[in-house]
This record gives sequence, C-alpha cells and structure tokens, in this order.
Amino acid sequence: MNRRNLLGTLAAVTTTGIAMTMSGKSKAAAAQSSAGVAANVSRTGPRNLITDVAGLQVGQSHDADSQTGVTVILPDKAAVAACDVRGGGPATRETDALSPENLVQEVDGVVFSGGSVFGMAAADGIAAWMGARGRGFSMGAAPGVPPSPILPTACLYDLANGGNKGWGEEPPYRQLGVEALEAASADFALGTAGAGYGANSGGLKGGLGSASVITEDGITVGALVAVNSLGSAIAPGGKSFWAAPVELNAEFGGLGTAGLVAGPEDYGRAMQPRANTTLACIATDVALTRVEAQRIAIMAQDGLARALRPAHAPFDGDVVFALSTAQQEASQDMPRSVLVTRLGALAADTLARAIARAIYEATALPGSEVPAWRDL
Amino acid sequence: MNRRNLLGTLAAVTTTGIAMTMSGKSKAAAAQSSAGVAANVSRTGPRNLITDVAGLQVGQSHDADSQTGVTVILPDKAAVAACDVRGGGPATRETDALSPENLVQEVDGVVFSGGSVFGMAAADGIAAWMGARGRGFSMGAAPGVPPSPILPTACLYDLANGGNKGWGEEPPYRQLGVEALEAASADFALGTAGAGYGANSGGLKGGLGSASVITEDGITVGALVAVNSLGSAIAPGGKSFWAAPVELNAEFGGLGTAGLVAGPEDYGRAMQPRANTTLACIATDVALTRVEAQRIAIMAQDGLARALRPAHAPFDGDVVFALSTAQQEASQDMPRSVLVTRLGALAADTLARAIARAIYEATALPGSEVPAWRDL
Repeated sequence: MNRRNLLGTLAAVTTTGIAMTMSGKSKAAAAQSSAGVAANVSRTGPRNLITDVAGLQVGQSHDADSQTGVTVILPDKAAVAACDVRGGGPATRETDALSPENLVQEVDGVVFSGGSVFGMAAADGIAAWMGARGRGFSMGAAPGVPPSPILPTACLYDLANGGNKGWGEEPPYRQLGVEALEAASADFALGTAGAGYGANSGGLKGGLGSASVITEDGITVGALVAVNSLGSAIAPGGKSFWAAPVELNAEFGGLGTAGLVAGPEDYGRAMQPRANTTLACIATDVALTRVEAQRIAIMAQDGLARALRPAHAPFDGDVVFALSTAQQEASQDMPRSVLVTRLGALAADTLARAIARAIYEATALPGSEVPAWRDL
Repeated sequence: MNRRNLLGTLAAVTTTGIAMTMSGKSKAAAAQSSAGVAANVSRTGPRNLITDVAGLQVGQSHDADSQTGVTVILPDKAAVAACDVRGGGPATRETDALSPENLVQEVDGVVFSGGSVFGMAAADGIAAWMGARGRGFSMGAAPGVPPSPILPTACLYDLANGGNKGWGEEPPYRQLGVEALEAASADFALGTAGAGYGANSGGLKGGLGSASVITEDGITVGALVAVNSLGSAIAPGGKSFWAAPVELNAEFGGLGTAGLVAGPEDYGRAMQPRANTTLACIATDVALTRVEAQRIAIMAQDGLARALRPAHAPFDGDVVFALSTAQQEASQDMPRSVLVTRLGALAADTLARAIARAIYEATALPGSEVPAWRDL
C-alpha cells in the first residue's frame, strides 16, 4: 500500500479544505521505499502492455526486406483522443481533426508507421478496410456511402536506416497498414517490431515499446511508443536507462540509477541527426473529455523528456496521442483537475518505461552496423 | 576535453555526408566518464548564474511582511525572445506580443513575480520607469511620447503560502517591480529571494535558482527559475535531486543519483495543489532568430520535466522564456538546426540544474510550517 500518493494528498484537500495534508512517512510507505522495485510487483498490468487498458487491441506488421513497419492501436469502439506535437520535424495526418473545437470527438484508431511521408499511406489501407466494413464517423448512414474512419497517423524517419527502400512508385505502407490491422490482438511484439522495426535511437537500435500500470483504486494507464530518437535512452559511458528511476519489476534490466551521470554536451553514443522522431500513445480506461485528454498528452511528453536526452529537437517529430476507452467512470469524489493530474503523471512515468523497454527489447537488423542495447 | 559531443557528431555529418560519425569511446571521453563530476569543473560560468551570459543583469526585490517578491531579467539592449507556456494555470502578460508573426521582435526585460494575478503589476512599475527614461519599443521618437517597453511577465501563486496578503486595493507589486529594476546587477541572491521569496515546491520551501554553462567552443547558456511547483525536485524517501545526473561541481550538494527511485504515484512529500507554477528563463549570448529561440524554449521545458515530478500539471502555470543577447555569432560551419539542437539541449540541462539550486539554496520563512530542503 502506498499512502504517500497524489490521490491521498489531493483527495484530502477536497474534504478538509486544507492544502497540506500528508503526514510524514507512513510505515507502509517507508517499507515500500526501502524495498524499492520489489514492492511494486503488483502494479503493472498483467501483460505490461498498453492493451492492459480494457477496450484496446494493437496490430503490427513489417517488411523485412524494406526494414520498416506499421503499428495500429485499435479501440473496440471509437475513443476520445487528443494529440500533442512537440518535435521539430513531425510527419502527421488527421491531427487537426482532433482540435477540441472541431467536429469529431473520437477516433477509430491511431496509426504509427516508418517510412516518413510515405508511411502515411498506412492509414489509407486501414481507412478503406474499415470503410468497407461500415466502421467510422458518419452524420447518418446512407446506402452505398461508407463512413469516414478517423485515423490520426504519425510517421518516423527510417528511410536511411538500411533495408531496401527502392520501391519507386509502390511504397509498401498501404499494404502494411492492412496487415497490421488484421493482426490486431491483445498481445504484440516489442523491440524490432511494427513501426519500430527499422527505427534507431541515439546510436542504438530503436524499436517498439509498451508498458502499463494499475493504481490502487483500479485505474489502468498504458503506453505504446516507437522510438527513433535523436537522443539516447541510456546515459553516457554505460548501459543505464534514463527511465531507471521509475522501472518496475526489472522490466528493462534492473540496472538501477547509479550510472545516470552526464556532463555538458556528453550525449554518449553517436547520434544520427536526420529526421528522427519518437511516436507515442498513452491510454486509460477512465472516461475523459477531449480537453482533459489534451492535458494528459501534454504531461505525458515529460516521460519522453525523462527517458531520452536530448528530446524534442528540431530533428525529432515527437508526437504524443492520448486515448480514453471510457470503460469506467472516475470516482466523483475526485475533482477532475486531480484526476487529470494523476493520469498525466502516470502517463509520463509509463511512457518513460515504455521507451526504455523498446530499446531493451530491440534486436539488431541483419546487415546493420547499428548495435542493439543487448549487444553492448 | 569531451569529444563525444553533439557538436562533433553533427559537424562531422555536415562535412562528410555520413550520418554515423562518432567512433567508439575516446580515451578522453572514457576518462571524463570515470571521473564524473570532477572532470566538469571548468564548465560552469564564473558566477554559475544566468548573468554569465554577456549582456544580462538581474534585479530582485521582496516584501518580508507579505512574503512575496519580484525578479526582473534585464538585457543591456533589447533582446530577441520567445515564450513557451505548458502549465495548466498560467498567469502571463505580454506573451502574445512574442508570437513570431507579430510586430515586436525583441524585449526590454522579462519579469517574474509572486502574487498571482496581482503580480502582473510589477511590470507596470518597470514599464513606467523605463518609459520615463526613453527605453522601449517605438516606431520613431516623438516629443513627449514615451516608447513602449516590452516586458513579458509571468507570475506564480504564493498568495496562500503565508505572509500578510491583506493589502486590499494596494498590492505591493508595482513598487516591488521598480525596486527590483533599481537593484539590477550581475550578482543576485538564490533561494528565498525575488520571485521565489514566497514560493513552495512539492511540500518544501521553493525559491529562486540559476545556473550557467560554457561550452568548449565558447557558447554560454544560462537559466533562471522561480520554483513554486506542485511536483517535487527530490525523489521520494530521501533528499536526492531529480537533476542530479547533470549536476556540476556539487552545486546542489553532490548527493548523486543512487537515491533516484519512485514507485507509481509515489511523489514523496505532501504536495500543495493550489495554483502552483514554475517560471523559467533561459538565455544565450549567441545571436538567434525569434523562431530559433522558440524551439530552444520548447526543448528547455524538458529540463523542467527532468527536475520536477510531476510537472506541467493543471495546477502549474509553467512558462519558459528564451532570450538571445546576440553578443556573438555562431560559427557558420555549424548548420542552424545543429546550433538550435545544441542550445536547446544545453538549456534543458542548465534549467534542471537551476531548479535544483533553487530548492538547495532556499531557507524557510519565519513562522512557516513548510521546511526547507536544508532542514530535512
């Protein structure tokens, strides 16, 4: 039990009207602190994947010859979504539709792809597939008129990372989108997979990561990320992950935090300053408005900042989406601003963990000179 | 000497056209890594303050009875500036003027104040003082017409932190603004000072922090921050600063990174979820366009994310300004995107250090139940 949490702090504010409410270390909290990671065994979801959030599936595909791939996050029914773009080189599609003043409130999926601008075709394939099956946004059904599937999409730049990109006028992404969709499941691969198949990160093999957390009061938050960052997920001079302070159950090696030291302009391994990009999606089962989801996406970017150094550079196209599957209503005893603070803070930590897991799970591609973390 | 830096990596890209350029660990880099902090002794500016950036002064004032204060950052001549607002509860003035499509390119000062919405009057006093002396923006001098000093301003919420706020219709901020301006100097106090005088941070006394760094090629980056955050600058269960990985010269105690562990929703000490807010300004002596300064402000927010957990909550009004005093031109051998990446990454680390220094230097206010870090 962890009584030193934000819920306790803030809920007490509400009922007492006093801002400072937390007592000193409770015995339970002190025990947890000294036990460290071990005390948190029960806090991830059963899969430690974004699909621990009820109402979500994930599908992935890749082209081993082209060394690229696609990941799609699929809510069982249209889900409230927000988007926060903070990198300097984004490649996105259908993100303007998510502005809160616009018509559409919910999305049918979120699509991540390699292939830079060519990758946006992944959503073409998925949109056609869904439209043919009557799934999507519509102001009213009409015979022979497909609905419009809302599929916000973001792409990372893996064009120059190796593999055969000589596809001329026939890039593979439309087909990869359909294949990813048809593979949708609660289980999916991490590391060299999906949109992270061809990704690199701070001079190492990048990849696809995911993680989840379940709170004491039963809220689930999950994250999925394709890491192709300019910045590094590990501190210079070793293998320690920047995300180590929030690691659970040695999910990315349990190396601890002692190695987290970096001098000015010491970013460790060689960085590859082309168009880079980290693509992230966080999700929760709690019902949210679209504007609440926006603040959570903003706070989640801090997980990217904590797990990668540097982040949000001109070369990155960093994007965070936030989804609510609305499988449960939050307690009405909790002010909405407190709920959003909790979810945003959880999302940041969970995204940081997902980033480290992406690098930890990645394997080097055949013929590539870029090593995987596990090869260091 | 640190050869594993971004400059080396990216400059080599330019000249060779090859993305991966860094060799393995150089002997010098390995030596630096093993020496840790000690190897970086020479890398801060002489004052380790934002005023190490040539062409800047800082003035501060406070009202001990009201337990609040003002800090003003003053360029010797009007300076290019950008602003990035990411908190959920900002209190700002003259930030719209900084949008790149607008008329004004440069500012005469950046003003930080306690007092929430009342604090914005600090800029009234400074504007009148400057206008009376002919300093400010004008489309052409005219007899008897003062110029318009451009003074972007942001305030933090210290109203309920203690002290006598019963000022009725006469809040002290206009006068505090003038007093801060008249105290401008290259040297200024940290901790319980200026806009951070009445600040709290994550259940501890907050305050005013600053730090600087000088690169091997002679670029100076500095940061100043008033920390009144919801989130904590230290990890739960101890005194370790989240910014420890980038600490230089034991500038905030040299406690290291081993204590940086936090379970889900374990945020340590009690947090005070009123309107909070961290106000930051980063500066460099390198000439920048206003749009370049914008990307650097965005990247600098990552320093806030790394030094405080959580950050950017609905209760925070987090703002980062970026200033260029244009005392030197960057090498033309360096692509501008590389320059911006370097400066943004340096700004993030320097801001993280400044945040930790604010808490480290703070002293508890008389009569307050909120302890200072040094009292733990």
